[in-house]
Amino acid sequence: MTNTVPKTALQMRTLVKDSGELELSLAEVAVPEPGPDEVLIRVEATPINPSDLGLLVGGADISTAKASGTKDRPVITANVPPPALRAMAARLNQSMPIGNEGAGTVVKTGSSPAAQALLGKVVAGLGGEMYSQYRLLHVAQVLPLPDGTSPVAGASCFVNPLTALSFVETMKMQGRTGIVHTAAASNLGQMLVKICQKDNVPLVNIVRKKEQADILKAIGAKHIVDSTSPSFMEELITALAETKTTLGFDAIGGGPLAGQLLVAMEAAAVRNMKEFSRYGSGQETQVYIYGRLDMSQTLVPPGVGFAWNLGGYLLTPFLQKVGPEVRNRMRQRVVDELHTTFASHYTAEISMTEALNLDTLKAYNAKATGEKYLINPNK
Amino acid sequence: MTNTVPKTALQMRTLVKDSGELELSLAEVAVPEPGPDEVLIRVEATPINPSDLGLLVGGADISTAKASGTKDRPVITANVPPPALRAMAARLNQSMPIGNEGAGTVVKTGSSPAAQALLGKVVAGLGGEMYSQYRLLHVAQVLPLPDGTSPVAGASCFVNPLTALSFVETMKMQGRTGIVHTAAASNLGQMLVKICQKDNVPLVNIVRKKEQADILKAIGAKHIVDSTSPSFMEELITALAETKTTLGFDAIGGGPLAGQLLVAMEAAAVRNMKEFSRYGSGQETQVYIYGRLDMSQTLVPPGVGFAWNLGGYLLTPFLQKVGPEVRNRMRQRVVDELHTTFASHYTAEISMTEALNLDTLKAYNAKATGEKYLINPNK
Repeated sequence: MTNTVPKTALQMRTLVKDSGELELSLAEVAVPEPGPDEVLIRVEATPINPSDLGLLVGGADISTAKASGTKDRPVITANVPPPALRAMAARLNQSMPIGNEGAGTVVKTGSSPAAQALLGKVVAGLGGEMYSQYRLLHVAQVLPLPDGTSPVAGASCFVNPLTALSFVETMKMQGRTGIVHTAAASNLGQMLVKICQKDNVPLVNIVRKKEQADILKAIGAKHIVDSTSPSFMEELITALAETKTTLGFDAIGGGPLAGQLLVAMEAAAVRNMKEFSRYGSGQETQVYIYGRLDMSQTLVPPGVGFAWNLGGYLLTPFLQKVGPEVRNRMRQRVVDELHTTFASHYTAEISMTEALNLDTLKAYNAKATGEKYLINPNK
Repeated sequence: MTNTVPKTALQMRTLVKDSGELELSLAEVAVPEPGPDEVLIRVEATPINPSDLGLLVGGADISTAKASGTKDRPVITANVPPPALRAMAARLNQSMPIGNEGAGTVVKTGSSPAAQALLGKVVAGLGGEMYSQYRLLHVAQVLPLPDGTSPVAGASCFVNPLTALSFVETMKMQGRTGIVHTAAASNLGQMLVKICQKDNVPLVNIVRKKEQADILKAIGAKHIVDSTSPSFMEELITALAETKTTLGFDAIGGGPLAGQLLVAMEAAAVRNMKEFSRYGSGQETQVYIYGRLDMSQTLVPPGVGFAWNLGGYLLTPFLQKVGPEVRNRMRQRVVDELHTTFASHYTAEISMTEALNLDTLKAYNAKATGEKYLINPNK
């Protein structure tokens, strides 16, 4: 199979110039030779996750985006406002590859038996730079998929499945008994619904549209609260009190929602108190912000009690903290339930040149709930 | 000495009626008899801490306050706006005693040797209801003061000293090496400056007036940053980077300050990075809100990285968590350094009837930095 591998191939790049311009393009790069423990993957499916958009688009103002270049080598440029430019100081003038995860076929391997065993297999990989026609990875970074699995089915093995699983692991580690989740109709949110059903974990799902509630009802979600309902806070407090939930994961970040979760958790705990305390319920509560679909400030009102906690959440430090045993158990579960719990749905499958089409970029950059794009760099 | 104890005595009370009215008054209550392990304290000095005002005034609108009653039994009433009334649902129509801490003379004791040993001694006490002429406490709740200590010197033995000491204990428990503190010229802030000097702990003090900076300079504070300076953020980042501070304690609560601490900690950590990471510095940061001098919403902007933590902080759960050995070590240090590190300064010493004077109430309810009132219920 090695004779089918070209000497050079295309890789998507993002560059922020100190002049205040974002430039997205396709670079022709040398296809690397595998070392003993490495495998070369022909990437055939790689999703555009919100975390990828953070690096791809950064703080650029996409309403100013312009298309140039050629049909085969499109270029997109956009203005980066000064505050965003300051925040990206450390990446200025560096042309950076992107793409957190993906799947494809191993077309060349190093000399070690572990590497050679993967030749011709469909594998999933985590490690950045997946928006490339070919990607070299260490065998430890790839997850071999069961025979017959398509790259499309295996494209999103890591970010969403492991993040959703990590929510439940975090709940258990902290001795809590339920979870409240925002943007709950997302791909990740649907996985979480299925995990919690299997594991008997009470889950309160927050959505902001009736259609999103319908998606979750269809897969059997029990507690669904619409944040645009006039009685949102009352419904949320009731659901949290019923499920005794003191742990939240929020994908929105900005605005009032994270603070509302904390207020509702405290109100649910106070509802069960027998006596007044000036210090509130004393119930320790925790909300993690794991996404920033809304880039405005997070608002925390005073009614959160005195034992509240709010913080940032990332998968990678979680995986480092829990150690190899838990990590391997989580990865194995993803493989075992790839076509059920962890099935992803994509809005469209596009090529890298299509990903650099202005209208397509605006569509996936909108991060609409339930919308997800898949790139096939070899399409 | 027991023959000097009257049968009844005065106690300050706060009552929130379901009609939406706050009522502050003095109640005549029976002076209780000590059980075997109890002592009766004639309270001679009890401070008005912000935590006391939370219960005393609650969410009432003091601009609507009116005086009534008599010279000896003044009454103050004020409107409670509906949102505050809802938040205080659990205390409605209950006449509640107040006063977290104070000091006085033991005038009567129970039969146990531990109780009898305290007869005639000046002791400090924690346990609420100290805005009373007499207060019954278990011997375990009182701290005997060295001979010759006045009740005024011992009035604030607990809340501020133990809170300031707990900041340094928290820092050590979390493996951190510096602290940033807001409202730093407060009584508590000045204690923290002295503790950190003795213990060689780097401390960044945030104030909002030149006079406050001058107070801290006079007692030897090294890092002082004025939040009203046009280059506040730059000065703060520099101080945090120099001291490698990743832990903050904020007395303000509402508004941008807590978020600014987190942003500055992340910026200080990024400044020391060699390579760009889309996930920021990875430095885990923590800000605790231990007071709410500003009752507006806490604002957290996106530039805080991904490993930030913000939460509520109370002394009591901290003391429960650390166990008796650390608690006793902290209490002993307060006694040992009562006239140096933990010396409190008071704006005025007032009687309970004076505390219910309209102008005086407005003065201490303003919670101006460095202003603190002391009540002598037996004045």
